[in-house]
Amino acid sequence: MKVLKVGILGLGTVGGGTYTILTENKAVIEKRTGCSVEVARILDRRKKEGVPEYLYTEDPDEVIACSDIDLVVETLGGIEPATSFMLQAMEHGKHVVTANKAAVAANYQKLTETAAKNGVQFLYEASVGGGIPVLTSIQNELQGNNFLEVMGIVNGTTNYILTKMTEEGADYADVLKDAQAKGFAEADPTADVEGIDVANKLSILIALAFDKYIAPTDIPTTGISKITKADIDAAAAEGCKLKLIAHAKLMEDGTVEASVAPEKIPFAHPLAGVSNEFNAVYITGDMVDELMFYGKGAGALPTGSAIVGDIIKVAKTK
Amino acid sequence: MKVLKVGILGLGTVGGGTYTILTENKAVIEKRTGCSVEVARILDRRKKEGVPEYLYTEDPDEVIACSDIDLVVETLGGIEPATSFMLQAMEHGKHVVTANKAAVAANYQKLTETAAKNGVQFLYEASVGGGIPVLTSIQNELQGNNFLEVMGIVNGTTNYILTKMTEEGADYADVLKDAQAKGFAEADPTADVEGIDVANKLSILIALAFDKYIAPTDIPTTGISKITKADIDAAAAEGCKLKLIAHAKLMEDGTVEASVAPEKIPFAHPLAGVSNEFNAVYITGDMVDELMFYGKGAGALPTGSAIVGDIIKVAKTK
Repeated sequence: MKVLKVGILGLGTVGGGTYTILTENKAVIEKRTGCSVEVARILDRRKKEGVPEYLYTEDPDEVIACSDIDLVVETLGGIEPATSFMLQAMEHGKHVVTANKAAVAANYQKLTETAAKNGVQFLYEASVGGGIPVLTSIQNELQGNNFLEVMGIVNGTTNYILTKMTEEGADYADVLKDAQAKGFAEADPTADVEGIDVANKLSILIALAFDKYIAPTDIPTTGISKITKADIDAAAAEGCKLKLIAHAKLMEDGTVEASVAPEKIPFAHPLAGVSNEFNAVYITGDMVDELMFYGKGAGALPTGSAIVGDIIKVAKTK
Repeated sequence: MKVLKVGILGLGTVGGGTYTILTENKAVIEKRTGCSVEVARILDRRKKEGVPEYLYTEDPDEVIACSDIDLVVETLGGIEPATSFMLQAMEHGKHVVTANKAAVAANYQKLTETAAKNGVQFLYEASVGGGIPVLTSIQNELQGNNFLEVMGIVNGTTNYILTKMTEEGADYADVLKDAQAKGFAEADPTADVEGIDVANKLSILIALAFDKYIAPTDIPTTGISKITKADIDAAAAEGCKLKLIAHAKLMEDGTVEASVAPEKIPFAHPLAGVSNEFNAVYITGDMVDELMFYGKGAGALPTGSAIVGDIIKVAKTK
């Protein structure tokens, strides 16, 4: 049987979920691809229970420059050193799969160009909407469309907070504390609550749907930290829910208008029903009309599912 | 530039939508695929305005056996002669793309085996959920999962009727008449209202998600023609909406339990919000957890969008 050797950079939540899926679902993946996907090397200092110690290294070159590795999974997070590692892996002829929206959004052009130059695949389905297969759908089945509009609820933390504020009439600060206690929000929640994470994801969605690169720092971005109970009540009085929306729209002159901000979504709109930590991306194409993709936008196994989907794409062409 | 020559069997609603997309979005399709997709032959007696007369033929062999055609789009509908035409086209080395759920469900094994034997692609994304890219997602990005459950609202006519009965408190017979007047239901609505169309689509979903073939005629099927206002009120009293659900579940012994029947869906479930002629497929995977794909399940352009997506898949590999 053919073998695809995988190196993982960072065995945290998402890297760990990826490892779990490749291990637990090994048989079904082999059956579907005709290829054995083997984790050959892991860059991490922290050892995880159940993972053989000999797989670990603390030297990134043992993953990104090792002739034995066919594909590198980058799940370190953060823009650097993740971007440099991905570029180096591509220069060494390795396919790269990542969940890292910050790195992909910041360096989209450099990463895609380097992949093309080296004839390797660069896949990042997991970077937007976790396990929801929205990026691949935009790039494949929906390619007969001109995309007109993309609206996304793509951050679970802020959607959880807004849902609790709406359903329980609670204050922002109280819900944030509760979300932190439950692990739905980080100790420093800035990137989530100020919309920075959403802007990264919107930059990627725009690149794929509109074939234009808009840097996340160039997207007007308002988070939810100033939303009050009064704002939520005012929206409800108009028959709407407040949702943090990644919004991009093709204008008549061919430009794309982009924003990240809380928006009033009418109760009857499919996005209004997306609650708690769930994500959804709502797309309008000139031919397919309205579509919505809904699912878990974060978490070890849902996000790992998207990474493994990308790995399988490479395994099928091996 | 490379050229992909397409023949279309049947220029009705869906075939016509496909032609429109290939014509109107020709430039963007060329840009995305590096391939010119050209409609070279159309089997139909009825001429459509705006379609060059010289493209038409009344001889199926001029499409399915013509050495000049690379890919055949089958949009005749019905099991025969559609199945025979598709098989013959494959034997002649042509890729086949279809929206024909009845033919795919009835002859799934024969069609997929014949495609494999002849080294051609057989693609049928449009056969379930119209423009919603659910089949491709099951076959690609979600392949790291064992699928546990599939629930679909995959017939627009019955969903429209149930929605109107629920929202307006109207009787089945009155809503059916209204749907027929609006073109949402056919003059003979049997295949829709008795769940036969849904069983065809469920058979295809099961084949892809569970790698098992269950003939549509072997799926216990109950339609909506006996649903009364009282049934809808009783469901509402329990906090539920009645929806016609294509349902398949992986059992502990590895078998798949399948049914088509009206089911009570709790208001808070994402499927409860799928109204009117919209479709949605709700999938649970062991890793990705819950996902829902939502959009227009019928119509010339949404269904044509899925057919063109399949054509583009072939064009990209040319």
